[in-house]
Amino acid sequence: MSLQTAQALVTDDLAVVEQQMLKKVGGAYPPLAEVLAALIQSGGKRVRPMLVLLAARFHPPRQHSRLISLAAAVEALHTATLVHDDVIDGAFLRRGQSTLNAVWTPDSTIMAGDFFFSRAAALVAETENPRIISRFAETLDTIVDGELRQAFTARDWSQAKEGYYTRIYGKTAALFELATQTAAILGAAPAEEEEALRSYGNNLGMAFQIVDDILDFVADDTTLGKPAGSDLRAGIITLPVYYYIQKPERRDALMALADGGPSSDEAVAEVVAMIRSSDAIAEARAEAESFVQQAIADLAILPPAPHRDALEDIARYVVEREF
Amino acid sequence: MSLQTAQALVTDDLAVVEQQMLKKVGGAYPPLAEVLAALIQSGGKRVRPMLVLLAARFHPPRQHSRLISLAAAVEALHTATLVHDDVIDGAFLRRGQSTLNAVWTPDSTIMAGDFFFSRAAALVAETENPRIISRFAETLDTIVDGELRQAFTARDWSQAKEGYYTRIYGKTAALFELATQTAAILGAAPAEEEEALRSYGNNLGMAFQIVDDILDFVADDTTLGKPAGSDLRAGIITLPVYYYIQKPERRDALMALADGGPSSDEAVAEVVAMIRSSDAIAEARAEAESFVQQAIADLAILPPAPHRDALEDIARYVVEREF
Repeated sequence: MSLQTAQALVTDDLAVVEQQMLKKVGGAYPPLAEVLAALIQSGGKRVRPMLVLLAARFHPPRQHSRLISLAAAVEALHTATLVHDDVIDGAFLRRGQSTLNAVWTPDSTIMAGDFFFSRAAALVAETENPRIISRFAETLDTIVDGELRQAFTARDWSQAKEGYYTRIYGKTAALFELATQTAAILGAAPAEEEEALRSYGNNLGMAFQIVDDILDFVADDTTLGKPAGSDLRAGIITLPVYYYIQKPERRDALMALADGGPSSDEAVAEVVAMIRSSDAIAEARAEAESFVQQAIADLAILPPAPHRDALEDIARYVVEREF
Repeated sequence: MSLQTAQALVTDDLAVVEQQMLKKVGGAYPPLAEVLAALIQSGGKRVRPMLVLLAARFHPPRQHSRLISLAAAVEALHTATLVHDDVIDGAFLRRGQSTLNAVWTPDSTIMAGDFFFSRAAALVAETENPRIISRFAETLDTIVDGELRQAFTARDWSQAKEGYYTRIYGKTAALFELATQTAAILGAAPAEEEEALRSYGNNLGMAFQIVDDILDFVADDTTLGKPAGSDLRAGIITLPVYYYIQKPERRDALMALADGGPSSDEAVAEVVAMIRSSDAIAEARAEAESFVQQAIADLAILPPAPHRDALEDIARYVVEREF
């Protein structure tokens, strides 16, 4: 399963979305403009704008340009939080490339993040749809709340699984949900279709983040583009860690490592290896698969169509991907 | 001239504005919640929400709650940029208090800034007015552009005065202009009144920032709440510096100081003293006064009223204030 069929359906629109994001990067500050442009053009898999464009196919909005603005707004918001997240994580590698942080000062990185917030605000305003604008504002709230929760629950080894769910909703699922729901709103889809697409986005996003968190343990550093176990090193308890520490003796070992000051690369690598070879990975993967099944079931009330197939493909891809 | 008369007119509403900003600070993360609440409650002079509330008196909107949301949105956007600005400046003192930066890590400061962006977005969405929402997005664009310009023009000693104007428009005047113009839009004021209030806000903001830049040289450290000459130390060329270096021999002396590596406190203090005692301060002050006169003239087409008097008072206060 790959994203190619889904991508093919919206490939022309995705190019225009990129143009919309690049607007204003302009010529005024060459060093910055180049970094911003590179950041946009490196672009990852464009899953979020793809979701907007595909979800909109059920009830295409009268003004296609507003749909482009919406898709670009979603991706700009994603980019803004990604850039600030890099400062916050102190992550120096992402997508296998240097992040802004590595080549830039924190100052410029904050400004670059703010630049994308500003693009997102301008783009969503272009939809001229108050409900969509409100949903964006709510989602930004949720994302920031998720960042804060993550910072304030690090190294809390006894947190409940619900805490993890709330955090990954803020980190990933809220924006996926925003993408598919606002596409439905823009096309004035009937309430039950809007709800189906919202729920699909939510479930897909949850699965996506669980798989990301699994890959942080099972993928190798090169595929991952960053050292394995980086969340663990920061004391962030993801689902594989949660399952792993349900056995008290394992929890004690992990706490001893994590609370004993800055962990050495070797110590982290050792824990990563233990978690990787434990049943925790399979347990986490089963949850991701369950979310994907729910996402696919959400689509059932929508009429069969190539774009519905594409959304199903994306859901399957999310659990099968290896990076 | 003080702000007391103006403040008295809107004092009840300002309290509600503060409540709106505090919403969501909530109980979830006690250490953060306290810092955010302190940041809101320290609150400075609340000039921007005061401008919204007074400008709206000419044509009060039907739904007063939307006006409160608008005023709170303007102040939240101001707070967001202030917080990120502190990270960017590396400023450790502002308003004579520890900034977030001094007590917190850069990470938490970025999150706090993002928190206020998110409040601003939610609050402006509550106005449900597409034109106001678009103006907010444009203004955020302008502010970020101003930050970038400031970073990229530091230590460019031959920049034209227009560059300074563009930067202080982004830094201050754009938000003042937004405050007064959107208040008019919300009340569906006639186009010429909206334009008068917009222009008033713009001129007032320009004067406000020029005076801020003068105070950075003439106020003492205690009044200022930060060391005098802090912009100069960062290589930012403000209007007093611009006038000072119009004489080539002065420029050479300043460049020798600034480009010779990190300047010592003594060296900066020496230059501050030279600028303070030069004619550059009076030249800059004359410009601030000219902007204030334009701001007052802008109000002429509006009907006489206590709130018009209050706006005039604010304009006079801006050039007379000593901190």
